[in-house]
Amino acid sequence: MTQFTEACALVRPIDSAGAGAAAEARTDRLTKPRGSLGRLEALGTQLAAIARTCPPPVPEHVAVCVFAGDHGVLAQGVSPWPREVTAQMVANFRAGGAAVTVLARQTGAEVVVVDVGVATPIPEPAPAPGPGSASGPGPRHSAAAIGSEPRLLRRNVRRGTADLATGPAMTREEAYAALDVGAGVAADALAVGAQMLVTGEMGIGNTTPAAALIAALTGAPAAEVTGRGTGIDDALLAHKTEVVRAAVARLTPGADLGAGSVADPIAALAEVGGLEIAALTGLIVGGAAAGVPVLLDGVIAASAALVACALVPDVRGYLIAGHLSAEPGASIALDHLGLEPLLSLNMRLGEGSGATLAIPLVQAAARILREMATFEDADVTEV
Amino acid sequence: MTQFTEACALVRPIDSAGAGAAAEARTDRLTKPRGSLGRLEALGTQLAAIARTCPPPVPEHVAVCVFAGDHGVLAQGVSPWPREVTAQMVANFRAGGAAVTVLARQTGAEVVVVDVGVATPIPEPAPAPGPGSASGPGPRHSAAAIGSEPRLLRRNVRRGTADLATGPAMTREEAYAALDVGAGVAADALAVGAQMLVTGEMGIGNTTPAAALIAALTGAPAAEVTGRGTGIDDALLAHKTEVVRAAVARLTPGADLGAGSVADPIAALAEVGGLEIAALTGLIVGGAAAGVPVLLDGVIAASAALVACALVPDVRGYLIAGHLSAEPGASIALDHLGLEPLLSLNMRLGEGSGATLAIPLVQAAARILREMATFEDADVTEV
Repeated sequence: MTQFTEACALVRPIDSAGAGAAAEARTDRLTKPRGSLGRLEALGTQLAAIARTCPPPVPEHVAVCVFAGDHGVLAQGVSPWPREVTAQMVANFRAGGAAVTVLARQTGAEVVVVDVGVATPIPEPAPAPGPGSASGPGPRHSAAAIGSEPRLLRRNVRRGTADLATGPAMTREEAYAALDVGAGVAADALAVGAQMLVTGEMGIGNTTPAAALIAALTGAPAAEVTGRGTGIDDALLAHKTEVVRAAVARLTPGADLGAGSVADPIAALAEVGGLEIAALTGLIVGGAAAGVPVLLDGVIAASAALVACALVPDVRGYLIAGHLSAEPGASIALDHLGLEPLLSLNMRLGEGSGATLAIPLVQAAARILREMATFEDADVTEV
Repeated sequence: MTQFTEACALVRPIDSAGAGAAAEARTDRLTKPRGSLGRLEALGTQLAAIARTCPPPVPEHVAVCVFAGDHGVLAQGVSPWPREVTAQMVANFRAGGAAVTVLARQTGAEVVVVDVGVATPIPEPAPAPGPGSASGPGPRHSAAAIGSEPRLLRRNVRRGTADLATGPAMTREEAYAALDVGAGVAADALAVGAQMLVTGEMGIGNTTPAAALIAALTGAPAAEVTGRGTGIDDALLAHKTEVVRAAVARLTPGADLGAGSVADPIAALAEVGGLEIAALTGLIVGGAAAGVPVLLDGVIAASAALVACALVPDVRGYLIAGHLSAEPGASIALDHLGLEPLLSLNMRLGEGSGATLAIPLVQAAARILREMATFEDADVTEV
């Protein structure tokens, strides 16, 4: 049995009836009108049900796991960005200059960068420039002391997927290998104390496989789930949509798709997915198996969450949607999963940036349950 | 000249053409697709324009200023909560057990509680219980080391307003005194290093004066701006709406109101406002005068912001809407001011809780501009 299949077997339902109900009762005793903390109240209840205790721990130690992979479908012109940018951004993550690393430093989260499918070998980083050689106007790394420098894990399964427009993106064995990478990264992060996992990714072209997976697993038409990604014009969007439609059709020949009609989610992952998406699926299941919350970023994470929940429905209870990506497939996937995003800031960067920005909201929901006074504690009149 | 009127004279337009334009240009050089950080990008531009420099400083030192006041209109039954809860919650703020104090501790913000209009004298706090006597299930004050304990400032102008349903809530002199309290609190916080001000308040019954001010200053009908506050039934909502309508009608006898039709915003504040709302107006103008961002909480803060901007239109550029309160007047006021809220979590607690939760988003927008690498810095291919 692989690390991923072991994790699948370990996922149990969250404790809604026990710790979740206790959190609801406690929330109504806190010094505030009932329901007045809105979305934070339901989030606190979920955190208690995940932790199986009320009040839940505040997830102070958070690992943002950024999986990088390349995509053969880039040959179809689905992104204006060249493939080399994936590897360049891995270097940018390691240097702390990318959005997700800036946002993680602010909140004290650790960033782990994982090469699971980058097309070109990732070189060792150049020595850091001396303090006098910074070219930016601001102290780029002034907050670096808050978190440690991002680590790179070399877990390359394959140097980029094949073109999903012309055949399977990867073999079933490669998909399982990438799922294992993700489950392994989750286990390693949790072993050193992570209390919450955040999904991140980097892969030029990866909104195309994400759209295909969302179409396959929700039954939504290609035209509704396919978006402009980092920015393409109408003609390229039409072509990208046709690529998605044709790829999904291979999974269910002749079928009029309904939601959840893909019988074998791993076959879908191999046929139209991506290596970083498979690894994210493994991370998500690994987090759920260990009983910690998994905070999802945007549309790529949502596609991986669909695969994870299709395989193991009890994973759903461990998921928190960090933000609503501007990419259209994101809301379709989150609606299908019944997840309400915490932030809606019209972000569409990926990397884990939106979810990382939402970390303090999750911490706040737990902290409210732990630290707010009850009416009795504070001797406040209740009505 | 009072401290408030001095502050009014010092407000200058934010530097959109200089530092704001520089921030826009820098944002487009950062290693991400253009526009992909969504709302954070415009916020970063605003912060640069406020600070008159690009990149702007990260507002690390933040003061959450919670003004407390009571309301004579409570005699009309507009809230189910008794007046004594205002003073009880002041004690809860000081003990660190209220939502805003929990959220402020998490983010390292300082809380200042100001009695500007509480009806009953605020006693000295009881000695803190020993470590063995805590009654809650969690370590309520475990994070107290992050921020200092909330301070109480005794600036009582009047022991609660008069009933605005039967006459003026306060005199013009009292309104000016409360405006001065707010401007003074801003000046004091800034003098000890605050880089951003957050509005907070506590006042049982204060959604009624807030609704009246929003109706008076936007021209919206009472029925659209009046909500259920902390929770009232349909019959009480109808009565509350009529109280608001009748009070606003006194300001503009016989007039068919249009937006901004109140010629004298301070007269409106005195006639239908509240002492904590007047103090918030002073705080907002004080922050703008000093050139720092002012992060607004919910509907009470929005009503104060309307008064501030009616008096000094250039205040508008310094305002950031932290969240969208569930109270209906909030969105009407924010729309009138052209402010887009950062969070929308269905919160309706007040205290400054929603805005305090949004502090990390503001810090992130500044940090992105300071710490993200440009394409040139990181040697990433640009398209």
